[in-house]
Amino acid sequence: MVDREQKMSGEDSLIARYFRPLASNPGALGLGDDAALLKSDGDDLVVTTDAIIENVHFLADDPPETVARKALRVNLSDLAAKGANPAGFVLTLALRDAEDSWLAPFAQALGEDAAQFDCPLLGGDTVSTPGPLMISVTAFGRTPAGRMVHRDGAKPGDRVVVTGTIGDAFLGLDILRNGAAAPGLDAAAADRLIDRYRVPQPRTGLARAVRDHAHAAMDVSDGLAGDLAKLCVASGVSARVDASLIPLSAAARSLMTEGRVGIECLLAGGDDYEILCAIPESSLPTFIEAARSAGVAATVIGVIERGSLPPTFVDGAGAELVMRRLSYSHF
Amino acid sequence: MVDREQKMSGEDSLIARYFRPLASNPGALGLGDDAALLKSDGDDLVVTTDAIIENVHFLADDPPETVARKALRVNLSDLAAKGANPAGFVLTLALRDAEDSWLAPFAQALGEDAAQFDCPLLGGDTVSTPGPLMISVTAFGRTPAGRMVHRDGAKPGDRVVVTGTIGDAFLGLDILRNGAAAPGLDAAAADRLIDRYRVPQPRTGLARAVRDHAHAAMDVSDGLAGDLAKLCVASGVSARVDASLIPLSAAARSLMTEGRVGIECLLAGGDDYEILCAIPESSLPTFIEAARSAGVAATVIGVIERGSLPPTFVDGAGAELVMRRLSYSHF
Repeated sequence: MVDREQKMSGEDSLIARYFRPLASNPGALGLGDDAALLKSDGDDLVVTTDAIIENVHFLADDPPETVARKALRVNLSDLAAKGANPAGFVLTLALRDAEDSWLAPFAQALGEDAAQFDCPLLGGDTVSTPGPLMISVTAFGRTPAGRMVHRDGAKPGDRVVVTGTIGDAFLGLDILRNGAAAPGLDAAAADRLIDRYRVPQPRTGLARAVRDHAHAAMDVSDGLAGDLAKLCVASGVSARVDASLIPLSAAARSLMTEGRVGIECLLAGGDDYEILCAIPESSLPTFIEAARSAGVAATVIGVIERGSLPPTFVDGAGAELVMRRLSYSHF
Repeated sequence: MVDREQKMSGEDSLIARYFRPLASNPGALGLGDDAALLKSDGDDLVVTTDAIIENVHFLADDPPETVARKALRVNLSDLAAKGANPAGFVLTLALRDAEDSWLAPFAQALGEDAAQFDCPLLGGDTVSTPGPLMISVTAFGRTPAGRMVHRDGAKPGDRVVVTGTIGDAFLGLDILRNGAAAPGLDAAAADRLIDRYRVPQPRTGLARAVRDHAHAAMDVSDGLAGDLAKLCVASGVSARVDASLIPLSAAARSLMTEGRVGIECLLAGGDDYEILCAIPESSLPTFIEAARSAGVAATVIGVIERGSLPPTFVDGAGAELVMRRLSYSHF
């Protein structure tokens, strides 16, 4: 067997060393086959795929641990918004080289997240690239048959609900890009914003409540304003949002109060990875309580309306906000 | 609605223009949701993921049509080797820019292949990259419950069988890299070799026969010698291959006869995308006939043996070949 180990390629040895320890799920076949296996159990499979690229979705000096967590979590966020429980994921890793100092903490953090969110590594592909690092994840979730939550079910009268707080990741990225927090923002607050950019908090605990109560849902990844517009288009409705109800962290609120950032930027900034959903009024108390039980804040920010116009955002006095840019686009 | 179209981001409009026409399968949800849906039908799902990167797996001046076909087909090849029928795929496309002249033929060819192999586009992610193009595909196949063909079932006495011909893609890549075919190779023959590199021929039609008859199978992507070694390690066996039985195209054979390439290079060269399998002797005639019916040549090249030593390759006279390099590795 020594002979064989010596003949093992660098690629195979990299997989054996860093990723096989993560592949304890039977469906992964120990990463020793050409494919993974998702056994049928009668549930529907929800499939989502999201890639993150160095200097596009994360920064070159972001720690490998946070890169790993972000790569998986942006996909877990999609599953939660679809009302699906995580079932596993496959990983494509495009690397310039195979440095232990980067791969070891990357794999360690990925394994921790896979365990925490009960979403096992099932397979993958490791390739070399002369370009930026890229981590592409395809994640699988399960729902009872026919129960995936779509974007297109919102109905006039539904309440527009969003989880967590909005705009923190946008501010965190801004701090990383400028190399300094805004004056008046203490270091701990700045770190919290940066952490929100680097390590999304997928609302996995809310998947069941979304499945049970939401008429429509999606995750907020490209900016709340633009994502709500997409949900409205899909559902053939409009919406009216009271911007003064948008849930903000203390740091975001203080920066806004000081006039350092406008609400429009927070509404159009990406990387929130919160759940945006349309909840019928009758289910609202149950949904909010379910969110509380899951440790997630859920806030009503507006109402779904008839019509085909883009959603309107009004301030506390009812005046319409002008939105120059709704969301992030790669092209 | 005009207003909305204008507000559509470049990314959304790219997806709508090029990829939505491909997403006719109900599970794709028109590419208008955050996830795709694979309805349960009692079958097991086989999942494989393979990425191709510019200047690593394809060349910068390869036509967009062949890049699209290769990205999908390297995954279809895995499914066929696992005995799975294609069920669909998701696509991650990392682009430097969004040029119509590249995207239009890419999407067109991808759609043609999806239709030809009955493997519909279900979803994807399109991102910008400052680096090389990368196309990552995760493909899904179905087998009856418990019937996926693994790597680890080969038994002493099984015949080692390989489909198609070996080494053509290696020679095609060599021609592309050197800018000229070997003297004595006519242009049509050179084109056929290049085509074998650019456009793999997944043995989808053989999936059922592999599922019904193979003790073990995998696709040959990194070189026959190395891939057979992997199958042997997984199965806890050794193998003996008669190199004079390796199926070669007329072009490969003539280059070998002229002494321009050695059999070791053809055995260690990548990109064959043929099926390598271990077939019990009793099933051999049925399997070979099934392959013939599917229009695929299947050739016995050796036998699985007891032991833990790497496979041996002997020439027609029984002398062992020295293999310096078994396969391609990215690192």
